[in-house]
Amino acid sequence: MNFKIILYITGFLLMLTGLFMLSSIGISIYYDSKDIKAFLISGTCTLALGFILWFIYRKEKGAEITKKEGYFIVTIGWLVMSLFGTLPFIIHGSIPNFTDAFFETMSGFTTTGASILNNVEALPSGLLFWRSMTHWIGGMGIIVLSIAILPFLGVGGMQLYQAEVAGPNKDKLHPRIQETAKRLWAIYVLFTMLETILLLFGGMNLLDALCHSFGSLATGGFSTKNQSVAFYNSAYIDYVIIIFMFIGGTSFSLHYFALHGKISSYFKDSEFRFYFGFILLTILFTTLFLIFNNSLPVELSFRNATFNILSILTSTGFAIADYESWAPFFSTFFLILLLFGACAGSTSGGVKMIRYQLLIKHSILELKRLVHPHAVLQVRHNEKSVPNDIIAKIASFVFLYLAIFGIGSFILSFLGLDTKSAMGSVAACMANIGPGLGSTGPVSNYSDVPDLGKWFLSFFMLLGRLELFTVLVLFSPSFWKK
Amino acid sequence: MNFKIILYITGFLLMLTGLFMLSSIGISIYYDSKDIKAFLISGTCTLALGFILWFIYRKEKGAEITKKEGYFIVTIGWLVMSLFGTLPFIIHGSIPNFTDAFFETMSGFTTTGASILNNVEALPSGLLFWRSMTHWIGGMGIIVLSIAILPFLGVGGMQLYQAEVAGPNKDKLHPRIQETAKRLWAIYVLFTMLETILLLFGGMNLLDALCHSFGSLATGGFSTKNQSVAFYNSAYIDYVIIIFMFIGGTSFSLHYFALHGKISSYFKDSEFRFYFGFILLTILFTTLFLIFNNSLPVELSFRNATFNILSILTSTGFAIADYESWAPFFSTFFLILLLFGACAGSTSGGVKMIRYQLLIKHSILELKRLVHPHAVLQVRHNEKSVPNDIIAKIASFVFLYLAIFGIGSFILSFLGLDTKSAMGSVAACMANIGPGLGSTGPVSNYSDVPDLGKWFLSFFMLLGRLELFTVLVLFSPSFWKK
Repeated sequence: MNFKIILYITGFLLMLTGLFMLSSIGISIYYDSKDIKAFLISGTCTLALGFILWFIYRKEKGAEITKKEGYFIVTIGWLVMSLFGTLPFIIHGSIPNFTDAFFETMSGFTTTGASILNNVEALPSGLLFWRSMTHWIGGMGIIVLSIAILPFLGVGGMQLYQAEVAGPNKDKLHPRIQETAKRLWAIYVLFTMLETILLLFGGMNLLDALCHSFGSLATGGFSTKNQSVAFYNSAYIDYVIIIFMFIGGTSFSLHYFALHGKISSYFKDSEFRFYFGFILLTILFTTLFLIFNNSLPVELSFRNATFNILSILTSTGFAIADYESWAPFFSTFFLILLLFGACAGSTSGGVKMIRYQLLIKHSILELKRLVHPHAVLQVRHNEKSVPNDIIAKIASFVFLYLAIFGIGSFILSFLGLDTKSAMGSVAACMANIGPGLGSTGPVSNYSDVPDLGKWFLSFFMLLGRLELFTVLVLFSPSFWKK
Repeated sequence: MNFKIILYITGFLLMLTGLFMLSSIGISIYYDSKDIKAFLISGTCTLALGFILWFIYRKEKGAEITKKEGYFIVTIGWLVMSLFGTLPFIIHGSIPNFTDAFFETMSGFTTTGASILNNVEALPSGLLFWRSMTHWIGGMGIIVLSIAILPFLGVGGMQLYQAEVAGPNKDKLHPRIQETAKRLWAIYVLFTMLETILLLFGGMNLLDALCHSFGSLATGGFSTKNQSVAFYNSAYIDYVIIIFMFIGGTSFSLHYFALHGKISSYFKDSEFRFYFGFILLTILFTTLFLIFNNSLPVELSFRNATFNILSILTSTGFAIADYESWAPFFSTFFLILLLFGACAGSTSGGVKMIRYQLLIKHSILELKRLVHPHAVLQVRHNEKSVPNDIIAKIASFVFLYLAIFGIGSFILSFLGLDTKSAMGSVAACMANIGPGLGSTGPVSNYSDVPDLGKWFLSFFMLLGRLELFTVLVLFSPSFWKK
């Protein structure tokens, strides 16, 4: 393995991280100037270290990257950024404990949005901005990763997306990735600006509007308020955020086609139709339940149902209501939803719709095969047949996902969480949602989880965010054999 | 579909059921003679109806059975036997409610052992015997089914067992099945007699010894005591039952080879090694925990751990301790164990070890493939390579199993059970274990579950018992097309 290229790219990522940190100074000056020093120190150090690495290994620029190096860079990149991302919190002193700071930053960069802060509003503006900024950077990273890089690496059946976005198709990373990445970023920036403006119209100040835009498009979920979006108590704001969570949970390659005039691309996509149908069904059920069982007004029922279901499914994690208080069975209902996720190629986390959809199709075919054992039957997606090895990869992904969910629930239970909270927190961290159930639910946070539990949960966030295999392959002995 | 042959076989099954019912009269006369009338009526009616069907369609004897008819017969057979099996309970009046009687009988024939009876000891001897007898008949049925019939039907990857037991290999059911079935029954009867004698030595009376032998070898779990096996408070009895639960959870084809002198067959079998290793690991962990955390004596810790873990993994469901009271995290631990099951080809239920084992092997290969994309890698089991379509069937089985578990938990939650109890009861019924968690846990029963919930749980018992596909295929439209 060429460690030089890894250090070169790590240097580049650190420079980016440092620059983003320094940019928070602008917000700090505009508002309360309370954390300028923390950002100056951490930003300069990160930038400098990044520059040194980048400068030493600059000859590696343009070197070809193998798959092995690809897995390593992706995992190490997220890890190093989360490590350095803690600096502003620690130097400023608002999160003095390193475990807490790492949990919060990893939660940011993986667009999870799980927090250990009991009083978010006590943070100075610069730190609030930086905290939400980690979501935005992570979301940007994940779009490029899931559409352009992971399919090339062959992780968990994501090859399905390869064909659609005209990505790389050789055995080495192709320069075309840069082109794809630039376009995707442009769309991402455009949507962010649009949502910020709409939220400003709704009465938010610039900081809140930016942070909530970052939180919804990156499907992260960090808010600047202790009560999350419920603080604003505004139907307009709720609906704006609903729309942009939905956008964040949709494949950005579909957005790309739509913005180029092919608006019909959405409904031509099989996964999008499945996602949309699933959302409609669950919203309808929840809305009717809230109207008839909890006697809430129709519009409020619809809004509560839509906001919370989209918040979970897109893995955002904003809250406008404590869904566990609606009825006891909503704990089970939302626990199940925590295992879904939205579309592949979006900023959302979790198993994602396409994998479940293909496994369902595959299982239906298995039933047909029992009746017609000699028929040749093949799973089809978007009118193309899906090779069996892709189905096998997807089955393996879902199996590993649920196995790790089980092992994680066991560990968190062992560390003292009750069954429901343990399962909820592991599911919510692996799927990068944020709030879980019970003691880590929407009206609570992760501050009471023991330190060891926070480390495990941080690991699960990373595992889930990088589609399991990218991280797990580093633990496989064959990875380290020459 | 040839409905005549289905009616012919149903007639045969009803005759068997009727004869078994009548045999309970012997026990009744020997003990309290309280339920002779109930058995006379129900036994005679069942026998007569069976005879009529059998007689009318006797010309079908020897007719070839297609796969479609196979699925239908298996499902209908279990259903009809459970339906008629309720008669003694209803006629005697000890379970007057039909829903309850059906739940209890389905729980018997599927070797689940989930009960709605608050006071088992109030039942007269004949009914106690009949109740446990349903386990024994069901266990016998499932061994033949899983070793000889399901592999032929191609259900859920069970084909793996086809080669080992020299079963049928043509497109029509082969007479050789009868030969295989006879041998398996002989082993089953032998073990039952052996355990009964050993339990008699432990001080049980004949009825209790028979019922507990039926319960352990069929991995059913109905006891004649309200406190289950804990009633006897005897280390000897606990260990005897431990041994026979273990035997019941091991493939009967391995027992067959062992009894023919090839005792090494056990450890030559990959699934058995995996099962054994898994048991050792979980017992070791639990024993150490009970010694160091709960300060229990070493032997008692070991016995409690071994008995309860085997009881869950083999899907028996006997209880000698309330494991949920050991420590809160044991709820999560046992919830996970509820999703395992023991070996294929045994009387145990659930997903079963071999499926998890092969999916784990497959997932490890997927990781290797990421590093060596061009290597040809194939999952191997017992030194033979496993074709990809078998892996796909298994993945599909596990996926469907977990999906139905999720849907079931949602339904039971909706009907009023709390999250943990809902998940526990669905997992315990699908895997034919019996006691779940919380309100349906080892120190409680299913009497408080709403009627609709009992029907759903009865359906899940049948689904799990017949390896999902056998039942689900009947709901597939292509099954009913000509």
